[in-house]
Amino acid sequence: MSIEISKAESHLLDGIKVESTSRGFKMILDEPVEEGGTDSGMNPVEAILCALGSCQCIVTKIVASNMGIELEDLKIELEGDLDPAGYQGDTSVRPGFQNVRSKFIIKSNASEEQIKQLVQVTEQFCPVGDTISKGTNVSVDYEIK
Amino acid sequence: MSIEISKAESHLLDGIKVESTSRGFKMILDEPVEEGGTDSGMNPVEAILCALGSCQCIVTKIVASNMGIELEDLKIELEGDLDPAGYQGDTSVRPGFQNVRSKFIIKSNASEEQIKQLVQVTEQFCPVGDTISKGTNVSVDYEIK
Repeated sequence: MSIEISKAESHLLDGIKVESTSRGFKMILDEPVEEGGTDSGMNPVEAILCALGSCQCIVTKIVASNMGIELEDLKIELEGDLDPAGYQGDTSVRPGFQNVRSKFIIKSNASEEQIKQLVQVTEQFCPVGDTISKGTNVSVDYEIK
Repeated sequence: MSIEISKAESHLLDGIKVESTSRGFKMILDEPVEEGGTDSGMNPVEAILCALGSCQCIVTKIVASNMGIELEDLKIELEGDLDPAGYQGDTSVRPGFQNVRSKFIIKSNASEEQIKQLVQVTEQFCPVGDTISKGTNVSVDYEIK
């Protein structure tokens, strides 16, 4: 077992705009004006959906190659259900996504049976999908400068 | 209870590079060359860390405002532990993050007691933190074009 550590850093800019970096790559996330932001980027829950869809695309491509399946096109549509009451302080409602749905739209000349297996294997081995669906402990600490 | 639906779409480009969009905002994720990508963006697990850190920054800022705390500076350092054996097919190892750590680095003239409470409340109400730490059902479906 050889654990690799992924790293990132987030920095609060003006208002509630946040710049995050990982290995030198940058991501600006923000909130729409009606949520108190300046709408300069997607918001963090939309970013999880993008991370999930991207991870599923990458794993699908790799698994397809291993299965000898050629993908002509792959799009994944994602949705997540969120009740704002949860993050606004109603403790009877969870603040995070209640459900996430992911729909693979695949163009390929593989058989339906192969496509079904491709999607199943991808679901099983997708790191972001596993992190979200199985849940992962998040420990929080702080330091006062 | 009024559910809002967040949406995104991911599209596999050349190799394992993926373009994802949400409300018109774009994110390019990829893998390093040694993982078979072209290193044109951070990878999906790094993107989850950025989504988490951004969400924690936004919630901290909002909670701090509600508590009358002024934040001079807020950075969050994030780490996630991943064992590649998991996504490479070893079913005895989970493919996703095994643990995530988040360290808030706060510059403020609030008391330590206030900062402690600020971090606790943020942890409780952060949508991305809740989605990951409590786990969220991800249902996968497909359509053949």
